[in-house]
Amino acid sequence: MDSNLPLPARALAVGAHPDDVEFGCGATLAKWAAHGCEIFHLICTDGSKGTWDPATDPAELVVTRRKEQQAASIALGGRGEVVFLGWPDGELESGLRQRFEVASAIRRLRPDVVFGHDPWKRYRLHPDHRNAGFLVTDGIVAARDPLFFPELGDPPHRPKTLLLFEADEPDHLEDVTGFVEAKLAALLRHESQLRSTMGIARRGAENENQEVLDFRQRVTDRLAEHGREGGFAAAEAFKRIDKL
Amino acid sequence: MDSNLPLPARALAVGAHPDDVEFGCGATLAKWAAHGCEIFHLICTDGSKGTWDPATDPAELVVTRRKEQQAASIALGGRGEVVFLGWPDGELESGLRQRFEVASAIRRLRPDVVFGHDPWKRYRLHPDHRNAGFLVTDGIVAARDPLFFPELGDPPHRPKTLLLFEADEPDHLEDVTGFVEAKLAALLRHESQLRSTMGIARRGAENENQEVLDFRQRVTDRLAEHGREGGFAAAEAFKRIDKL
Amino acid sequence: MDSNLPLPARALAVGAHPDDVEFGCGATLAKWAAHGCEIFHLICTDGSKGTWDPATDPAELVVTRRKEQQAASIALGGRGEVVFLGWPDGELESGLRQRFEVASAIRRLRPDVVFGHDPWKRYRLHPDHRNAGFLVTDGIVAARDPLFFPELGDPPHRPKTLLLFEADEPDHLEDVTGFVEAKLAALLRHESQLRSTMGIARRGAENENQEVLDFRQRVTDRLAEHGREGGFAAAEAFKRIDKL
Amino acid sequence: MDSNLPLPARALAVGAHPDDVEFGCGATLAKWAAHGCEIFHLICTDGSKGTWDPATDPAELVVTRRKEQQAASIALGGRGEVVFLGWPDGELESGLRQRFEVASAIRRLRPDVVFGHDPWKRYRLHPDHRNAGFLVTDGIVAARDPLFFPELGDPPHRPKTLLLFEADEPDHLEDVTGFVEAKLAALLRHESQLRSTMGIARRGAENENQEVLDFRQRVTDRLAEHGREGGFAAAEAFKRIDKL
Amino acid sequence: MDSNLPLPARALAVGAHPDDVEFGCGATLAKWAAHGCEIFHLICTDGSKGTWDPATDPAELVVTRRKEQQAASIALGGRGEVVFLGWPDGELESGLRQRFEVASAIRRLRPDVVFGHDPWKRYRLHPDHRNAGFLVTDGIVAARDPLFFPELGDPPHRPKTLLLFEADEPDHLEDVTGFVEAKLAALLRHESQLRSTMGIARRGAENENQEVLDFRQRVTDRLAEHGREGGFAAAEAFKRIDKL
Amino acid sequence: MDSNLPLPARALAVGAHPDDVEFGCGATLAKWAAHGCEIFHLICTDGSKGTWDPATDPAELVVTRRKEQQAASIALGGRGEVVFLGWPDGELESGLRQRFEVASAIRRLRPDVVFGHDPWKRYRLHPDHRNAGFLVTDGIVAARDPLFFPELGDPPHRPKTLLLFEADEPDHLEDVTGFVEAKLAALLRHESQLRSTMGIARRGAENENQEVLDFRQRVTDRLAEHGREGGFAAAEAFKRIDKL
Repeated sequence: MDSNLPLPARALAVGAHPDDVEFGCGATLAKWAAHGCEIFHLICTDGSKGTWDPATDPAELVVTRRKEQQAASIALGGRGEVVFLGWPDGELESGLRQRFEVASAIRRLRPDVVFGHDPWKRYRLHPDHRNAGFLVTDGIVAARDPLFFPELGDPPHRPKTLLLFEADEPDHLEDVTGFVEAKLAALLRHESQLRSTMGIARRGAENENQEVLDFRQRVTDRLAEHGREGGFAAAEAFKRIDKL
Repeated sequence: MDSNLPLPARALAVGAHPDDVEFGCGATLAKWAAHGCEIFHLICTDGSKGTWDPATDPAELVVTRRKEQQAASIALGGRGEVVFLGWPDGELESGLRQRFEVASAIRRLRPDVVFGHDPWKRYRLHPDHRNAGFLVTDGIVAARDPLFFPELGDPPHRPKTLLLFEADEPDHLEDVTGFVEAKLAALLRHESQLRSTMGIARRGAENENQEVLDFRQRVTDRLAEHGREGGFAAAEAFKRIDKL
Repeated sequence: MDSNLPLPARALAVGAHPDDVEFGCGATLAKWAAHGCEIFHLICTDGSKGTWDPATDPAELVVTRRKEQQAASIALGGRGEVVFLGWPDGELESGLRQRFEVASAIRRLRPDVVFGHDPWKRYRLHPDHRNAGFLVTDGIVAARDPLFFPELGDPPHRPKTLLLFEADEPDHLEDVTGFVEAKLAALLRHESQLRSTMGIARRGAENENQEVLDFRQRVTDRLAEHGREGGFAAAEAFKRIDKL
Repeated sequence: MDSNLPLPARALAVGAHPDDVEFGCGATLAKWAAHGCEIFHLICTDGSKGTWDPATDPAELVVTRRKEQQAASIALGGRGEVVFLGWPDGELESGLRQRFEVASAIRRLRPDVVFGHDPWKRYRLHPDHRNAGFLVTDGIVAARDPLFFPELGDPPHRPKTLLLFEADEPDHLEDVTGFVEAKLAALLRHESQLRSTMGIARRGAENENQEVLDFRQRVTDRLAEHGREGGFAAAEAFKRIDKL
Repeated sequence: MDSNLPLPARALAVGAHPDDVEFGCGATLAKWAAHGCEIFHLICTDGSKGTWDPATDPAELVVTRRKEQQAASIALGGRGEVVFLGWPDGELESGLRQRFEVASAIRRLRPDVVFGHDPWKRYRLHPDHRNAGFLVTDGIVAARDPLFFPELGDPPHRPKTLLLFEADEPDHLEDVTGFVEAKLAALLRHESQLRSTMGIARRGAENENQEVLDFRQRVTDRLAEHGREGGFAAAEAFKRIDKL
Repeated sequence: MDSNLPLPARALAVGAHPDDVEFGCGATLAKWAAHGCEIFHLICTDGSKGTWDPATDPAELVVTRRKEQQAASIALGGRGEVVFLGWPDGELESGLRQRFEVASAIRRLRPDVVFGHDPWKRYRLHPDHRNAGFLVTDGIVAARDPLFFPELGDPPHRPKTLLLFEADEPDHLEDVTGFVEAKLAALLRHESQLRSTMGIARRGAENENQEVLDFRQRVTDRLAEHGREGGFAAAEAFKRIDKL
């Protein structure tokens, strides 16, 4: 297992839905932000189906989740800079239309490191994750050479490294000792998702709520488990690709 | 290797073509049906290209194969309840149009266990199998939450377990000792496929036909081989996914 | 020119964007609502591109326009019952996915009369209008017979009449004498569109604002012009199709 | 109004569903067949939704309608030569996949005259008719030049004339005096459609059934009406295009 | 019939194939260029199927036709500035991918007047013409407002006028007296098309070749015919749309 | 590791871009050609984006790369027989339109062995490679049975073996001892790619150019590395699939 990239100047994390980035690489983003890296989010869908309550107004939910996502970016040490593509939740496609939006963001934000879902992850069911993953790989290919999408307003850009989270074959760790709390804080900014995604149905002060404590423990345990593979107290695991 | 789910009340098996379900999980269906489980088939394509005889009328073949598939369901202990989506054989796509038909069937039939092709199976060439596999995974995601396809006439439904056959990484066995014969009987109901799929070109009484005997032996050997991994006389192997 | 349908019990008006219905058939809806008809809106896109101000947050604009559309429905005498499909503004497609949603609304709301954009209107540039028009014609065909979209939760429904607004060949008038004011009131509920669609850039009390007065005059003149073709003080013009 | 093409050696009529060709140009086909022209049908969809009875088995209906269509071809004086593309009824698309099939049929059958739905017909709702119409126009363009679809097994073929039925702007008549009965006979071969398309719900001997007599009268009246435009006892009307 | 727009500063002509622009509006472009207007071409397809010789190498033909198109631009008084989208000839689609490219060109070149095929032209068979027409109308809608395709590198641009050639309902003439020769010269630059499109099979000096003389006469007659509608010696006819 | 197929009579290698085949299986093709096998290339895209120089004319680049690819075929011992599908580089799709072109080539060329990209290769970013891979697997399925694409001009053909290069799970080696030089020669025929793909920016005599020498070494080392797995001086590695 390889570990700990040099600090990038700029990092872009691409998620299918609001909160996917925090689960996938929140602590690494927090670590890098603390050391001066600029961090950006790109969220592919509008998150409009993310509730178990059929009475929810989807358009209101979209606005709520955008604010939650911006708050999470800030909780990680960013400035709330989030690109929202706004495709319908649950029906994301990885076509050319979506690809030029992702390539555009890569050319405009010029990240050294890009994070994304691993599109080759077997047995991960949600099609939005698979398609968001391919949008990152295919978007990088389109962003890097000058004859792809020459209509875009920014010059080509080739990131140095792609880190895929929820990876089918992880081979890289980022030591996130000291940044577990930032990841948890960012996750808990996604208040609309507490019940359906984090298993937190009860309301109440965070520190008195057993469901919140259980959720924190599950996340912490998982980071510790990854950490053990590299001799760190806590780590996030990735597939690393440098040949971009 | 984990094995033997508790008996479900209802099971739905999704195949690309008539006969795929019998190959993939016929003996398990037969076992469960014998113990009181209701079993259902969903067949994505119309099977209209399933012959080596260019003079075959495809529309007649479709009707023949529907009857064969219903007979196979009965041979497994079911009631011949088969949902036929009827997409053109060989050209199945896994788009939103197909996905809402699969999600609709899941909501209407409310299975505890769903069977499907493993869409991540490497080196399995037929695109219909790959697409039928993704229709199951994507259809389950759409079926389980209320804001997906709210136009459908039935409430959301979340199955408990997905079992993928022809799996890239099998991790679950179902002991089918005593149900090999039912699987074979169901397979042999697909009479139009004897030649192209089962290698049985000769006609004649089943018990005097060496090609039939050879086919029976191949299927039986394969089940025995899987059985050995779990200490069973015969087994079918699956990838099991519970986090749906 | 034929004129004045018998009062329907239920009417559904389908528009590409919030405000299209008010322009196309607002006064007729107001007249029918005043006489006891239940009126419904279906809006295909989210209206997220409807501004000349590049700093507008599209998700906020979506929420604003939904509220404006509901207020317009009420101004016409309805109860604010609006189905929002929420497809991305400017990129509406008339595929099977969208058709399923329109057919579903027709089956659920069971209108006697349906209003829509005329998809055959020549020299009307906006592709969303063309596609919204085809969604109505194609959605009616799918809604009326039992083997189309059997997954939908409501039985087939065949409307009696389709009225197309902005028609290529108008052949039917609805006398809207007395309902011009209701149409104007509903149009002016779309406050976010005052500048880009109605040419009203200045703010201020409606009755003192020359741009508002000019807009009112243009709409009133247009209705009077149509009225003259049928001997009415004011009318809205349509292509009428009864053979559905 | 121009009228009466010279007798072609071969004619191909393309319809969206079984029975569309008989309605559109059945009497002209019968006239030409009687004088030695070879006639061919190409039917784009499988007709599987053509019933008001939700209990109908769609696959059985497909087989029934194929036989009816072949019988209708024979009733017109043909040999029952019908190409069935078999696309799902109600969901026909006019993409490259379908175009390839239509171009293939044109190259193989080498018609002098092709008949089709007018895709520019305004206020004709059924999307299958619109798409079947475009498949003919686009299929002819692809069939006529050598670098289009060079994979096809037959050399390019350029028909002499395209006749569009149900035309937006008819400009050509075919005198069908003496062939009305053949058209009616062919239409009545589509027995599964008597109720939903021809308004004939009652069963019984044709010559004693008032609904049959009414249907015959409607068709006959319509042909007489077209005939009057050209001084014929009966005619079918078309848009004629020679610049192919 | 309205006629003669004020001289625009910049004009963009969009054609499906090399040579379509010269047929549609070549003389008007020549007139405007002579008076100081900058003229630009945008050609949607690569023209790779434009020959009756099956031995032609399509890639060589593409290069040849690009050069011919640039020469034609110069013959009209331009500088050979042609945007080639390069989509496969005969298979042009009017999807979002293509629309993005057309909108980009409009924003970059900032034309006052745009020319295009009339997509509503009835009984014009070639699907590339229909789709190229819709790409212009839909591309203008996308180019003009800031929230459409914000990824593009140029600010929004709203042309003043759209002129559609080969129009279903022409309502505008441009007097091209004195520019017929320029149009003919530009057309004859498309040497690879002499045979299949212009009916000129023989080789030889232009002024001694009867087929060339016949072609010149046909084009000249057509311009004179349009001219007569407006009292001009020669004119090109268009549908004019100002409400963009 | 299995190794060394019997010499096929005909082999077809399918690549996404010009040069992919030489990288993937050039030495094996050279070996087989030297022993009398007929070798064919099929290249899916036009290679029009294969440069880092934004001033390159894409159409000229296409022509250049076709010639380079034919020269490479000859360098391998073939006759320069290359099928160019010509889809836009960087935007290859694996739809039915592309699939029938690949199936057509397989039926026409009748290869015993087909080579292709492994579409299941994880962490290979370029979408054209993934899609070219699926076109081979799906094209073989379509080519082998008579009811798939019956419009094609050649009878069905079932290759004996599929060898996937850049494989996710290689299980087969071809000993290419003695054919390394031919592979290198063929690679260096792709002169337009020296800089972007082979890292050779400097011009000059091949044998004095250190960058060329480095490239030769990298390729040679890689073949030697594969060779070691099977006890050969040099080998190319594949996933082998016989059950076609």
